[in-house]
Amino acid sequence: MTRVGIVGASGYTGGELTRILSLHPEVELTVATSRQHAGKKLSAVYPHLSMISDIVCEDVNISELVDRADLFFTAVPHQTAMEIVPRFLEAGKKVVDLSADFRIDDARVYEKWYQAHSAQEYLAEAVYGLPELNRQKISAARLVANPGCYPTSIILGLAPLLEKGVIDSSTLIADCKSGGSGAGRAANVGTLFCEVSDGFRAYKVGEHRHTPEIEQELAKLAGHDLTVSFTPHLLPVNRGILSTIYATLKQDLSSQQVSDMYSSFYKEERFVRLCEPGIIPATQYVRGSNYCDIGFKVDPRTGRIIIISVIDNLVKGAAGQAVQNMNLVCGFDEAMGLETVPLFP
Amino acid sequence: MTRVGIVGASGYTGGELTRILSLHPEVELTVATSRQHAGKKLSAVYPHLSMISDIVCEDVNISELVDRADLFFTAVPHQTAMEIVPRFLEAGKKVVDLSADFRIDDARVYEKWYQAHSAQEYLAEAVYGLPELNRQKISAARLVANPGCYPTSIILGLAPLLEKGVIDSSTLIADCKSGGSGAGRAANVGTLFCEVSDGFRAYKVGEHRHTPEIEQELAKLAGHDLTVSFTPHLLPVNRGILSTIYATLKQDLSSQQVSDMYSSFYKEERFVRLCEPGIIPATQYVRGSNYCDIGFKVDPRTGRIIIISVIDNLVKGAAGQAVQNMNLVCGFDEAMGLETVPLFP
Amino acid sequence: MTRVGIVGASGYTGGELTRILSLHPEVELTVATSRQHAGKKLSAVYPHLSMISDIVCEDVNISELVDRADLFFTAVPHQTAMEIVPRFLEAGKKVVDLSADFRIDDARVYEKWYQAHSAQEYLAEAVYGLPELNRQKISAARLVANPGCYPTSIILGLAPLLEKGVIDSSTLIADCKSGGSGAGRAANVGTLFCEVSDGFRAYKVGEHRHTPEIEQELAKLAGHDLTVSFTPHLLPVNRGILSTIYATLKQDLSSQQVSDMYSSFYKEERFVRLCEPGIIPATQYVRGSNYCDIGFKVDPRTGRIIIISVIDNLVKGAAGQAVQNMNLVCGFDEAMGLETVPLFP
Amino acid sequence: MTRVGIVGASGYTGGELTRILSLHPEVELTVATSRQHAGKKLSAVYPHLSMISDIVCEDVNISELVDRADLFFTAVPHQTAMEIVPRFLEAGKKVVDLSADFRIDDARVYEKWYQAHSAQEYLAEAVYGLPELNRQKISAARLVANPGCYPTSIILGLAPLLEKGVIDSSTLIADCKSGGSGAGRAANVGTLFCEVSDGFRAYKVGEHRHTPEIEQELAKLAGHDLTVSFTPHLLPVNRGILSTIYATLKQDLSSQQVSDMYSSFYKEERFVRLCEPGIIPATQYVRGSNYCDIGFKVDPRTGRIIIISVIDNLVKGAAGQAVQNMNLVCGFDEAMGLETVPLFP
Repeated sequence: MTRVGIVGASGYTGGELTRILSLHPEVELTVATSRQHAGKKLSAVYPHLSMISDIVCEDVNISELVDRADLFFTAVPHQTAMEIVPRFLEAGKKVVDLSADFRIDDARVYEKWYQAHSAQEYLAEAVYGLPELNRQKISAARLVANPGCYPTSIILGLAPLLEKGVIDSSTLIADCKSGGSGAGRAANVGTLFCEVSDGFRAYKVGEHRHTPEIEQELAKLAGHDLTVSFTPHLLPVNRGILSTIYATLKQDLSSQQVSDMYSSFYKEERFVRLCEPGIIPATQYVRGSNYCDIGFKVDPRTGRIIIISVIDNLVKGAAGQAVQNMNLVCGFDEAMGLETVPLFP
Repeated sequence: MTRVGIVGASGYTGGELTRILSLHPEVELTVATSRQHAGKKLSAVYPHLSMISDIVCEDVNISELVDRADLFFTAVPHQTAMEIVPRFLEAGKKVVDLSADFRIDDARVYEKWYQAHSAQEYLAEAVYGLPELNRQKISAARLVANPGCYPTSIILGLAPLLEKGVIDSSTLIADCKSGGSGAGRAANVGTLFCEVSDGFRAYKVGEHRHTPEIEQELAKLAGHDLTVSFTPHLLPVNRGILSTIYATLKQDLSSQQVSDMYSSFYKEERFVRLCEPGIIPATQYVRGSNYCDIGFKVDPRTGRIIIISVIDNLVKGAAGQAVQNMNLVCGFDEAMGLETVPLFP
Repeated sequence: MTRVGIVGASGYTGGELTRILSLHPEVELTVATSRQHAGKKLSAVYPHLSMISDIVCEDVNISELVDRADLFFTAVPHQTAMEIVPRFLEAGKKVVDLSADFRIDDARVYEKWYQAHSAQEYLAEAVYGLPELNRQKISAARLVANPGCYPTSIILGLAPLLEKGVIDSSTLIADCKSGGSGAGRAANVGTLFCEVSDGFRAYKVGEHRHTPEIEQELAKLAGHDLTVSFTPHLLPVNRGILSTIYATLKQDLSSQQVSDMYSSFYKEERFVRLCEPGIIPATQYVRGSNYCDIGFKVDPRTGRIIIISVIDNLVKGAAGQAVQNMNLVCGFDEAMGLETVPLFP
Repeated sequence: MTRVGIVGASGYTGGELTRILSLHPEVELTVATSRQHAGKKLSAVYPHLSMISDIVCEDVNISELVDRADLFFTAVPHQTAMEIVPRFLEAGKKVVDLSADFRIDDARVYEKWYQAHSAQEYLAEAVYGLPELNRQKISAARLVANPGCYPTSIILGLAPLLEKGVIDSSTLIADCKSGGSGAGRAANVGTLFCEVSDGFRAYKVGEHRHTPEIEQELAKLAGHDLTVSFTPHLLPVNRGILSTIYATLKQDLSSQQVSDMYSSFYKEERFVRLCEPGIIPATQYVRGSNYCDIGFKVDPRTGRIIIISVIDNLVKGAAGQAVQNMNLVCGFDEAMGLETVPLFP
């Protein structure tokens, strides 16, 4: 059994990691940290984990806990991650980091959108953990930068078309909608039930920090720099991201041609589902699973293609993808522990 | 007291009309038809109207009921409206029609998106009932074509910029999200609670019938033909539409300049609220009211402006705007009966 | 115009008071306090109030603000109220207090469930503000203790039967379900969207502080002391309380006989709606209104009657009832400003 | 591999059976019937099952399909089940019936609450499929009557106390709240999103057909006949039942004594979780799982105990319990295929 630890176990991502890891036959959860709940059983913080896990939350004392696991998931805020991750690496541990700290290749870009970066020497070796694009590099990595939730849905939605060069990369617009769990479990007036329920709003329009990550990865696919209009919105649902992506086609393409591009690009993928004609993806169809469902519409009237890409933000957008990356890093079957079925309704 | 009738009182729009009209000091509801519920009190169909209205639903027998009101709201499906509306007009009545049948100026366009039109002779005199743009014509009309819910939010969001000519009309994208009441009260698997709740989906991508209506009215503002990418989505909320609208700016504009354009365009309007800087519109802030809240973001990185326009689809998107139109047609104060306060939370 | 002030305007109850008072033709809101938001427009705290109210929140400086209104609503937590209310009374002002501090007649009972009471000398004159039971006393009061939300629904549901003496008062059970706005607008993990949405739980079982208030008022109706099993639950809805109340009948009663008791008891009431046979009350039918809807079922199999009583917790359960009390205190028509229609759906 | 079939695969219970069976290592789904969707892939009816199951829905032609499976789940309405089930039994197949047709021992009681019973000869051998109470009989059965959702939560909540004889069986009240999936997937105005969302109502008060089933099983535990006041309510959630159960204690009992009774009764159970002190069950903590979570409160003030029992109505209340029964019938480990973790949030 591989021993794994979660740093930051009491956030929604930490709880979801615990859920998924408890279903994994080859790993054992040996460490779960939570400053706020140190000394409490994690199942007291998350009663849904009763009889699932007996692990007790502990304070973050790295030198004390580092030897008790072989691989660590760091599910802490950006800036905290860059302080912790190097210490695990120096101790010879593998790390899947769920923060933004090691996703941006260029420290100057990172510092423009976030704040100063104190662990720049690790940026070069960190691998952007989107298995569908970087499978081999991830398998060889000791530090995986797990992608953001919005970027995951957008990049998977656009990759086949950007790689084929059939869309105008100056016209990319991603209108994205996320469930409330993306905002985390911190007490906050803006995410109270009554502020979110039976309502809908956009936020951080044109300013969200996932923007540089999206642009960086799409630029690699396109082969040149580009910008994206990215607008996040808050849905009154617990889980799920739906990204509606607009791009102008550089040439006439039939639906069949586009369909073939997606099928070919994702033909071996176990977590990408291409919707059959007539079915439009919906967040409720991926709930609780690691799937990314993709559909599209070619619109000759406007010369645009509209792509719809859907994930569960806590699974493929966070904890599930992190376990998928762990599987690659550890040499397990890539889908191990992730073969659940979406929960509908 | 002006006597008014509602044809199609048992749909959500009919119920909402009844709610609003019951607060109106100058009108009396004298007719409410419902084939399905003929003979029942409307308050048995809609218990929230108990002690508010005693009206009894009756079958649609136009010759029998036409003399019992001075103005009729026709809240029936398209195609049904075109059969009924002419008979009211011929009897000398005013009509505010909430269907799509009299919104499209060009019968050929209508027939392309809907079906054959059997009352084309009334298209020329029908006035598109968006008071913020057509106030004077509405005041003189006997037939008002009440706008669709999506078009209302999109047109109000774009009008100031299109009129000023500062955006590239070939780049218009409207990503719209609507609450479930927009789908009506018909029994349908797709709109069952469990199909919609805790989920989110797009529908009729690139094919929704509001498209020609949107393009027609925006073209008038722009002064030339144009197309729009319009994508509707279904939100798990009862009421509310939020439209996120993208356009490329033809010139550099500061936020202050754009703000001034909106303020100037809507300066006399009582139902358009421009959000102060830092506040982004949300559907829950207009719930139950006739307001359209508008905010925007100029994004120099991409050269685009993102406009967010929010309404309650049953009020400003249907029944409220219909009463606003009735007020104009009847010479009442435009806001009469509509001076409610949004219900939050 | 009567000048009124709200102490504690930025909670949900304060926002709702502002909404209702803005519709009231005889009062003007001249004071709104909020420690947290002092200096901000209330419409910046509650964007739904844009263009409705221009009032600016101010700090709670009683000597400075006391002369600027004739009547004050105190919408502050218990214990804070008992410090503030006496000062308004001493300055000759009327007060409608929405806290629990003046609801319990016996200070010893209050101190057992809450904490020490520092203004006991005002308990005797405070009038329990349930107009349907205490209309005359309220009209003459200078201090009205506005009832709790749960007690309002339970007391109105049971009053006719307790007064008639037809139910066994040792068998009373109130199983109550409330929307999230009852928990207030404080940042709290337990009321985050993701903790409440798509879920349901009980809380404070057998321990909720509304218990003594419920028992006190029911005892007055019964003519003797009694206890009630009261179980509150948290619904994933914004507004609404539904109380399901169980009592053993002391004698055989037909549905008609029970119906007559309710009709007779509430025959003049404008805010109590008795459901017609076959219609069961639902929270969505009173949303945003001051109505209490009541239905019941006589069950000969078990010898019990089940009563269902529904209110909007922010209106009849708080701000609406407070305005109803203000109307009585000020000699206005009791329904003034409250003649809105429930918002459905 | 054991071959299993689902008759009635396109309802919510059928979809949930498919989800759970696809995770089961020892069975293969070989038949899925749906009159309405015959010829369609089940994953076209339920897109969340894409890439999970390739099974195609077929019409219900029993003689044609009976040999293609060893065990059948009948997830059809009552009355339909009694026509189908005998034919499977006669062909030597095992049946887990999810309808009400074989739950009631006494045909006269069944006929009083439902309609005439045409397969009474099978009532005697049908085993009520609550494994926690009837494990041995189920293991030996060829016909298992899978319990109703409400009865499951109520019976598990009361069993330890009734068996010990510590509560007064004439005082039982079960106030139950269920998510919308309990109403099934039929198109119906009453279960449309806008009728249910942001609202709450009771239904079939004192008249619900689960009543005789509840009373029958509780009577067996108590050792004598009894009646229960049972009130179902409709929650605006997809899944989950929470039952709040009231009973008068026959003797003083401490919380510890009650806790010991539950622990002792359920000590070997893998799907019953007893809440630790201070934690109250919530539907969101069992979402998607086969757990029944139970908590309680002894209230010396009223002499009552309040028990709270929570399940996922589609899992422990239907499909999960059916698979648990299948495991017993087939001699598999009782938890096989059911070891999922609740999905929260």
